[in-house]
Amino acid sequence: MTRWKLTIEYDGGPFMGWQRQDHGPSVQQTLEEAIHRMTGELATVHGAGRTDAGVHALAMSAHVDIAKVLTEHRLREGLNALVRPNPISVLEVKTVADHWHARFSCIGRRYLYRLLNRRAPAALDAGKVWHLAAPLDMAAMAEGAAFLVGRHDFTTFRSAQCQSDSPVKTLDRLDVAKIGDEIHVTAAARSFLHHQVRSMVGCLAMVGRGQWRAEQMREALEARDRSALGFNAPPHGLYFVEAVYP
Amino acid sequence: MTRWKLTIEYDGGPFMGWQRQDHGPSVQQTLEEAIHRMTGELATVHGAGRTDAGVHALAMSAHVDIAKVLTEHRLREGLNALVRPNPISVLEVKTVADHWHARFSCIGRRYLYRLLNRRAPAALDAGKVWHLAAPLDMAAMAEGAAFLVGRHDFTTFRSAQCQSDSPVKTLDRLDVAKIGDEIHVTAAARSFLHHQVRSMVGCLAMVGRGQWRAEQMREALEARDRSALGFNAPPHGLYFVEAVYP
Repeated sequence: MTRWKLTIEYDGGPFMGWQRQDHGPSVQQTLEEAIHRMTGELATVHGAGRTDAGVHALAMSAHVDIAKVLTEHRLREGLNALVRPNPISVLEVKTVADHWHARFSCIGRRYLYRLLNRRAPAALDAGKVWHLAAPLDMAAMAEGAAFLVGRHDFTTFRSAQCQSDSPVKTLDRLDVAKIGDEIHVTAAARSFLHHQVRSMVGCLAMVGRGQWRAEQMREALEARDRSALGFNAPPHGLYFVEAVYP
Repeated sequence: MTRWKLTIEYDGGPFMGWQRQDHGPSVQQTLEEAIHRMTGELATVHGAGRTDAGVHALAMSAHVDIAKVLTEHRLREGLNALVRPNPISVLEVKTVADHWHARFSCIGRRYLYRLLNRRAPAALDAGKVWHLAAPLDMAAMAEGAAFLVGRHDFTTFRSAQCQSDSPVKTLDRLDVAKIGDEIHVTAAARSFLHHQVRSMVGCLAMVGRGQWRAEQMREALEARDRSALGFNAPPHGLYFVEAVYP
């Protein structure tokens, strides 16, 4: 049995999310079915993160145990051929130690949220950015974001379905940058609560539009109350960028 | 009657090209139908360039004459609402002089060609880049590209359907740059022959893969013979970037 690390890009649009679901296609299931067709084995693919329906990944990390002897080339090319026409691409495969775990060995996760901030809607990037037509106040957004960085109880920014043991997380980065017509919010932490990035970005958008003062980000955080939340940003602007390992 | 300049972004994927066709949807027709629904007028939208089926635009320029009195806001927002769900976005509208012509007033056109150069196929950018798995020799491509810059007879790089009076064109720029996993070819000229950019990029790909020496770009140009052509790069990697006016 060989443990393989997979690095995977996907367009989350057609999927119910990363995780296998009864009610629709998932990235995990698509990969597991490709492995089954290739090897005859019923293997489980474990991801570093479980992205929601519609959320994309530039480089999700995952692992899977396969008995059949395969080269890196054969596994990567075989998976990329078998997942077609699904928008999933296996960027890299490599063997890892038996105790290496995509989720539990991961010491850092990074997300990108893309906001398109112009009057006209997205054409080329439809489904890849959140379109906000009204001009956003970048400086206020950056000021608001700074209140969330550090170790806090993020109950306000947690979904009712969150399965994390504790609402206390350390947010290492929450950066706001302007890239052409887009505003990019980058979030980095060891781990995140369910919907945390989307709810932080939803509140930052309220700050950017002048519906909230920047300080209301701190007030929302300190309320430790989900009803203090503005709203969740939609999934299609969110990208899982990177899982970091020791 | 007011002459309007439109600046338009579109995903060429679902269209038979810019120009109105009998056998399928076009960007021009989609815009003309939106204008008809908005104004009741049967106006013709004239583009700066007539992109082929599958070719995208970051900012195509066009003009149209409309009798109905409209504000910039009303026209832009109305068109963007009416073209949905087609992947067309009207970025900007403004009034221009009656003699201003999107095609004939244009003094420069710029195209971008995106090659994805990595083993794994595109997932997030599927249909937006040309995927070439084998590593390309960037330096050789840049060397080959330099032979084409300047005033030349581009008969080799012209399609049989080209309607241009003369095969002689002045190519102002043909730059090759590496952007992450992608190679970007930027071409700028006052005007191009039909299929010129795609056939130049097709030949540059042959140079990048080592199937042609860089000097074969010059030999192909000097042959002035379409049978000296390597092949056309596919349309889905090509973007009309900008039309320049005095």
